[in-house]
Amino acid sequence: MSSQPPHPTLLIPGPIEFEDAVLQSMSHYSESHVGPAFVATFGETLSMLRKLFQTTDPASQPFVISGSGTLGWDMVAANLVEAGEDVLVLSTGYFGDGFADCLSTYGAKVTKLDGPVGGRPQLPEIEQALSQKKFKLLTVTHVDTSTGVLSELKNLAATVKKVSPDTLIIVDGVCSVACEEIAFDAWGLDGVVTASQKAIGCPAGLSISMFSGRAMEAFKNRKTPPASYFASMKNWTPIMQNYEAKKPSYFATPSPQLVHALHTALSLILQKPLAERFQGHIEVSDRIKKAVKDLGLEIVATKPEDQAHAMTAIYLPEKVAIPDILPKLANKGVVFAGGIHKAIASKYIRFGHMGPSALDASRGDIDKALEALSSGLSECGYQKA
Amino acid sequence: MSSQPPHPTLLIPGPIEFEDAVLQSMSHYSESHVGPAFVATFGETLSMLRKLFQTTDPASQPFVISGSGTLGWDMVAANLVEAGEDVLVLSTGYFGDGFADCLSTYGAKVTKLDGPVGGRPQLPEIEQALSQKKFKLLTVTHVDTSTGVLSELKNLAATVKKVSPDTLIIVDGVCSVACEEIAFDAWGLDGVVTASQKAIGCPAGLSISMFSGRAMEAFKNRKTPPASYFASMKNWTPIMQNYEAKKPSYFATPSPQLVHALHTALSLILQKPLAERFQGHIEVSDRIKKAVKDLGLEIVATKPEDQAHAMTAIYLPEKVAIPDILPKLANKGVVFAGGIHKAIASKYIRFGHMGPSALDASRGDIDKALEALSSGLSECGYQKA
Repeated sequence: MSSQPPHPTLLIPGPIEFEDAVLQSMSHYSESHVGPAFVATFGETLSMLRKLFQTTDPASQPFVISGSGTLGWDMVAANLVEAGEDVLVLSTGYFGDGFADCLSTYGAKVTKLDGPVGGRPQLPEIEQALSQKKFKLLTVTHVDTSTGVLSELKNLAATVKKVSPDTLIIVDGVCSVACEEIAFDAWGLDGVVTASQKAIGCPAGLSISMFSGRAMEAFKNRKTPPASYFASMKNWTPIMQNYEAKKPSYFATPSPQLVHALHTALSLILQKPLAERFQGHIEVSDRIKKAVKDLGLEIVATKPEDQAHAMTAIYLPEKVAIPDILPKLANKGVVFAGGIHKAIASKYIRFGHMGPSALDASRGDIDKALEALSSGLSECGYQKA
Repeated sequence: MSSQPPHPTLLIPGPIEFEDAVLQSMSHYSESHVGPAFVATFGETLSMLRKLFQTTDPASQPFVISGSGTLGWDMVAANLVEAGEDVLVLSTGYFGDGFADCLSTYGAKVTKLDGPVGGRPQLPEIEQALSQKKFKLLTVTHVDTSTGVLSELKNLAATVKKVSPDTLIIVDGVCSVACEEIAFDAWGLDGVVTASQKAIGCPAGLSISMFSGRAMEAFKNRKTPPASYFASMKNWTPIMQNYEAKKPSYFATPSPQLVHALHTALSLILQKPLAERFQGHIEVSDRIKKAVKDLGLEIVATKPEDQAHAMTAIYLPEKVAIPDILPKLANKGVVFAGGIHKAIASKYIRFGHMGPSALDASRGDIDKALEALSSGLSECGYQKA
C-alpha cells in the first residue's frame, strides 16, 4: 500500500509518479550541507550516477546542481563552447530547438539539422554536415519530450568519431536517462545532461549530468573564462570532486532534501540490473504502442525504430480536441499532457510511461491509462474507422 | 511534538531547522507542473512573496526558480547589466566578493568598496564613489553570512537616489529576507535576491527574488540580449506572470514539491505581522549577543548597529580551535558553522538563529545552544579572563 494520499495518476512525460520511499526522503530533517552525514550521502549519490550512466572511467565527472534540466544546456553552452565556435545541433522537436537557442545565447555559431516532424536527421546528412566545418561539439536530444522521437546514439557516436574525431558528443538525456540504454563509456559519449523528475524518479529541482574526461579537458583548455557563474564548471568541479571524496566543500548551497531523494531513487534503480530496467520499459512501450494502434490512432514518431520507450506522443482523431479529451482522462484519474511541438501542438497528446508506472504492474497505472484513453475517446464521439 | 526524528539542532546560518508542516509539504504527491492545482499553488506563492517583501506596486516582479541563492546573482548580472557597464559592489565579506565575481563573469566593470573585517563601507565613501562614474547598479549584501555584518539599507537607498538616481539598488538578501526588515517599496529598492533555506524556512533548492518596475524596465531596454539562458528574465518573466495569473506556462520544469514547501513556509510567516517577526529576531539576537559577551567573547561584527539579528559570528578564544569546539557542540546536539571569511576563517564560528529556532521559545534551541557553547568552551579549557 502506498503511503501517498489518493491522487490522479500522473502519466505525463515528467514529472512522473514517485516511489513512497523517495517522497519520504524529501522530508528529511534539516542537515548541514557541509556536515559529515550529508557529505557522505551526496558523495554516494555522485558515485551511484557513474553506475547509472555506465561509466567506469575515473576521468568522467558527474554533477548534481540545484536547477532544472534546462540548466544542463547552460552548463554545456557556457563551459564547453567559446563564443564564435561552431556547434551542430540535431533537432527532433521543441527541446532540440531549445538547446540550439541556449547555445546561441552564449555565442556559439549553431548549425541545426532538423528531422521531419516525427523523425530525426539521418546519418548521411549528419556526416555531410560534419565534414563541412570543424564543430566544437554536436548535440543530440536522445528522446525529445515534445515528440517522443528517440535518436539512435551508438552509430551516431561512431560516425562522429570517424568523420570529426575532435567533436564532442553531447546528449540531452532529460527524457532518456534511466529508461533508455545509455552506455557512456562504450559509445564514447562526452556529455549527458538530464534532470531528476523523469525516469530517475526523484522530484524536480536537480540538474544531473556526466561529462567525459575529454570534455573536462576541453573545458580546461578554454581560452576564455566560462560564460556563466552559477553554471560554471570551474566553480562546481572541485565541489563535486570533494563531495565524492567525502570532504566538505562549498560553492553554493545544495538541497539536502532533494539529494536525499535522489540517493533513494538511485539506490532503488541500482538494486536490479540496468538491462532489466531498460527491457521493462521496452515491453510496456510495445504494449502501449500496440494498444494505441489498435485504437486506430497514429503515433507522432513515425518509424518504430524512432519511437521512445518511456513516452508516447499520440495524434488525436480529427474531431477530438485536447480540451475535450484531457479533462475526460482527468475525470478517470489519469493525467496526460498536451502537445508542445509548435507545428502540431493542438493535434496530439503525450503519455509518459516511465519508472514505477511502467515497471510496477501491480500499480495498474498502464491498464488504467489505456482503459481511460479508450473510453475517453468514445465519450468524445470517436469510433475506430 | 515534532513529527521529525530526533536529530542534532541545526543552528548554522542556513539551512535552518524547518517546521514539520514545511517538511511534510516536501513529500507532496506528484503533480503536473502545468495542472490547475499546482498552478494555483505556485501563483499564490508568488503573490505571498509580494507581502513578504512589502511591495504593493503591481510593477514589481517576483521570481521563484529552481537553483540556489547564488543563481540570484546570475539573474542580476545576466539581465540588469550589459558587458562593459559599471557596477558598484559594497562588500562586507565572502558573499559581497562572490557577487562581484559573478558580475565580472558577465562582463560588468566592477568597482568594489570593502568594509573592514567586521564592518561595512560608510555613506561618505559610497557617495564619493557614486559621484565619480555612472553606475548601472549598486549591490549591497544585506547580511553577509560570512561575517554577520548587517548593512543599513534605508539611508543607503536614499543616498543612491540623491547622488545617482538612475543607479539600480540591488540587495543580496539571502541571509536577511524574513528575518530583517526589508521595505521594498518604501525604501525604493530595485532588486532583492534570496534563497529558500534561511529565514524563509523552506529547504534549499529555490532562488527567490523580487525586482522593481524600474529594474524590469532597465531589463527591457537592454541593447544586447540577456547573457544567460537558464537565468534569463526574458525566458522567466512571462512564466511567472502566467503562474501568478493562474495560467499554465512552461519554460523549464519547476519543482512542485519545493514550491509546495515554500507555499507552506510563506503561509506560516504571513499568519503574523512581519513587524512582530523582525522584532522577535531582534530580541533573541540581543539575548545571544549579551550571552556571548558575558562569556568574554568578541563578535565579528564590531559595532552593535552593524550586527545582524538572525546570526552571530563569534571569535573563538585564542587557544580554542574550530576542530576542538565544533565536535564538542555536536556532542551536545548543536551544529554551528565554521568561519569562511578568508582573512579570519580559522578564528571564528557562526551561530544561526533564524525562523523556528529563534521565534519558538518552546523548542529550547537557543537555550540549548548557549548552554552548549558555554560548557563546550569550558571543556576546551577556556575560562573567561
